[in-house]
Amino acid sequence: MLKLKKVPIDTYPESVALLSRSCAHYRAEEFQALRKIEVMSDGNHILANLIIADDPAIVGPEELGLGEQAFRRMGLPEGTLVHIAQAPPPESLEAVRAKIDGRSLSAGQIKDIISDITAHRYSPMEIAAYLISSASFMTTAEVLALTKAMAEVGNQMTWEAPLVVDKHCIGGIPGNRTSMIVVPIVAAHGLTVPKSSSRAITSPAGTADTMEVLAQVNLTMNQMRTVVEREKGCLVWGGHVNLSPADDILISVERPLRVDSPEQMVASILSKKLAAGSTHLLIDMPIGPTAKVRDHKQAVRLRKLFEYIGDQLGLFIEVIFTDGSQPIGRGIGPVLEARDVMAVLRNEASAPADLRERALLLAGHMLDFDPQLRGGSGHGRAVEILSSGQALAAMERIIAAQGASTQKHALGEMVLDVPAPSSGVVGAIDCYRISRIARLAGAPMDKGAGIDLFKKVGDGVRQGEPLYRIYACVAADFRFSTQLAEDYSGYTIMPDRDGPRTGAKP
Amino acid sequence: MLKLKKVPIDTYPESVALLSRSCAHYRAEEFQALRKIEVMSDGNHILANLIIADDPAIVGPEELGLGEQAFRRMGLPEGTLVHIAQAPPPESLEAVRAKIDGRSLSAGQIKDIISDITAHRYSPMEIAAYLISSASFMTTAEVLALTKAMAEVGNQMTWEAPLVVDKHCIGGIPGNRTSMIVVPIVAAHGLTVPKSSSRAITSPAGTADTMEVLAQVNLTMNQMRTVVEREKGCLVWGGHVNLSPADDILISVERPLRVDSPEQMVASILSKKLAAGSTHLLIDMPIGPTAKVRDHKQAVRLRKLFEYIGDQLGLFIEVIFTDGSQPIGRGIGPVLEARDVMAVLRNEASAPADLRERALLLAGHMLDFDPQLRGGSGHGRAVEILSSGQALAAMERIIAAQGASTQKHALGEMVLDVPAPSSGVVGAIDCYRISRIARLAGAPMDKGAGIDLFKKVGDGVRQGEPLYRIYACVAADFRFSTQLAEDYSGYTIMPDRDGPRTGAKP
Repeated sequence: MLKLKKVPIDTYPESVALLSRSCAHYRAEEFQALRKIEVMSDGNHILANLIIADDPAIVGPEELGLGEQAFRRMGLPEGTLVHIAQAPPPESLEAVRAKIDGRSLSAGQIKDIISDITAHRYSPMEIAAYLISSASFMTTAEVLALTKAMAEVGNQMTWEAPLVVDKHCIGGIPGNRTSMIVVPIVAAHGLTVPKSSSRAITSPAGTADTMEVLAQVNLTMNQMRTVVEREKGCLVWGGHVNLSPADDILISVERPLRVDSPEQMVASILSKKLAAGSTHLLIDMPIGPTAKVRDHKQAVRLRKLFEYIGDQLGLFIEVIFTDGSQPIGRGIGPVLEARDVMAVLRNEASAPADLRERALLLAGHMLDFDPQLRGGSGHGRAVEILSSGQALAAMERIIAAQGASTQKHALGEMVLDVPAPSSGVVGAIDCYRISRIARLAGAPMDKGAGIDLFKKVGDGVRQGEPLYRIYACVAADFRFSTQLAEDYSGYTIMPDRDGPRTGAKP
Repeated sequence: MLKLKKVPIDTYPESVALLSRSCAHYRAEEFQALRKIEVMSDGNHILANLIIADDPAIVGPEELGLGEQAFRRMGLPEGTLVHIAQAPPPESLEAVRAKIDGRSLSAGQIKDIISDITAHRYSPMEIAAYLISSASFMTTAEVLALTKAMAEVGNQMTWEAPLVVDKHCIGGIPGNRTSMIVVPIVAAHGLTVPKSSSRAITSPAGTADTMEVLAQVNLTMNQMRTVVEREKGCLVWGGHVNLSPADDILISVERPLRVDSPEQMVASILSKKLAAGSTHLLIDMPIGPTAKVRDHKQAVRLRKLFEYIGDQLGLFIEVIFTDGSQPIGRGIGPVLEARDVMAVLRNEASAPADLRERALLLAGHMLDFDPQLRGGSGHGRAVEILSSGQALAAMERIIAAQGASTQKHALGEMVLDVPAPSSGVVGAIDCYRISRIARLAGAPMDKGAGIDLFKKVGDGVRQGEPLYRIYACVAADFRFSTQLAEDYSGYTIMPDRDGPRTGAKP
């Protein structure tokens, strides 16, 4: 028996255990070929990947170390006696092997895989094996089974309301913070809209990051329920509500692999909406050369998959294609985006018109879900709610219900204006590049870091006139982001009249 | 800039870097989503997976820790100033994505993948993505390109001899140490046979482990060349010779995933033989219900793939199917197997007849590669060399040339005889079970641990008579292995006359 010890290392998404090479009770190398071990005590057992330690200061010969993830999952105090064994491979890995061999999986097999992944029985390389085995081909029946399995393995919410509406945007467009305008409009109208959002993983801000500038977003499921029951809507972080725990684990492997199949995306999005108890879902699908969905053909294929799976689940889905050729609004990064959102809600003259229009378009479609409204009148109703200040009032109530932010977030103090290299007209803005620059500047970790755009596609510029301003809070971030912007600003400037393009990507 | 620090943890096959969460120069969490970072100094740069440390005793805010693998690959002293950045994904990962999408890869794309894997640019989950993307379908052109790429990325040997012969056994049969008999016979005849072998990874002994009981096996490529030039043959560990470095890395992921496609196996084996400069290869393919190759159909498919790729490479390949229904010889584990091998070479009356016969069968086929011999006379020549003591003399010269073992390896002192549960005839022996019991007893790490079989298939036994003896050197190993044997010995005893089976797997 070994004594449990917490080793303060964070190996997310992996759980690791550390065994001394001179362990008194086990031969560490014996476990090395297959890496994964099972750690057992009377109270609990977990699987963890093995690290062999050669320093008694890290783990002694009588100890078993657990990294932070593993220690939390084990849930037992230091010093607890545990024993270990080579971990049996998860049984559902047999189904993954069948999938590799080209067979289609039954709903039961997919359920077992998702259940094992959620219970942390898969190592990252086993998760990769599952994802790749399914990335090349899945039947629609498999996608349906996967969506159901992912929804059922986490928390599930139910609502008294006959209609529970939600929206989702297929990502990739910086500044696209429509949810923070749409939710107050829809809630003010009286529909139930329990919106949970993600934090940014590789982008400069997620809706949860931007909402956090104004209000608490780390609500539990019960707190979320209370807010929605009172105010009809909410804007909380989905990670805390645990609606699709399998998805969080799958994403931790999809991201570094940059694997993102349409089937997995549909299952990921719809499983969360299903678990949240939604009945009607509007999907905003921006199409653009630097957006996630690149062309119309890809968009139609994805739309049909959403519609098919939605129909099977009894979830009404409407997909609308929108312009994804450039960022929405002006600010990119939490504080700047929150500023734009509030300007729209306050009907300020300076509010970005494109953000306002996009939000009204989406809110209109969502209001059209309401059987009480005359067909096609949703957009007019959305304009009315926004213009009259009812949306602002609803947002203020939602902020108060979630708990207003106690922290004052200021813009970064290091700023640089990026100038136009030549005179002409903005021909294109590279969403991907703009995101990277804003991210390097410190967004979303520094709420006040990011980019403020002064010019959008079609605007005229004079040589040397600023295209956008970079804000950063830390010197190194400022240096990295401004360097990246100097290499290539993300803007393509075209001469006023027909002629060769300048400022193109080098 | 951060100061390099060695953190004594072994994370094979992964390279890891450790960054303090309160790092003075970088934001550790920024790197966490994509996990992999690039560590750079003037002298060198490597990629490593990131661990965030929350204890200054492990890494301080001004330090960058490297695990043992990463530190060795970085090759710079502690205290060297380094900087880090998010690692760009290996470019060849684009080809992996193309393969996932169902496309076939060009020889150039496969070469780039293997080259990036060998340079440790792939994380285990990226290696898994590559393996799985290729496991479901590879064209023979892809297998050929893979074999060539794997051979070319490591050391390559050339020989003056017109004929360079080699043998390989598809694994899974305990005690199958024919190489240590075949190589001396073939070398004594005068053919060049530069044999490199593996160490056990999940089995109780590899040829390198058993040969090490008698001689040094960790030879460099130049030492191997010297031995072969003098004695015509050698029996060294392949890991030190670095003939297929990509294979060692791929195997470190294939094992835990238990993924082993025929295409990958063929490329793995033939790339090593190609790099070793072989011209003629004999493949021993045991077929049996608990062997690696389960049935004749699977065997024929595998044989044809070997033959096709061999023909394309100009490597003459002969595949022979052998009986893989039970262990070969009596001893399982390095010391016991070495005892059996030497008994055969010494023509002792007690030598296991099946090991002798199998070795003569293989040696005969290899001698038939020699154009100077009359067709079909290889087996007779092999018997002559073995019986006359020439094979023993050749083995003694090879041992001397490699360097005789300076260590005396004794059998484990803890022994248990496993008795027959009933009287009858041995009907079957489960190779997989016997391997596991021998491995738990401590083989191959304890050279003297293992199993000595007293009964083989067809032998009569009386109830209580010992079937085999377990040897162990460490109390815990002895306990684990004898427990496993008591649960199920691996033997099926059938009554002398027709009747119900007893002792079957519970």
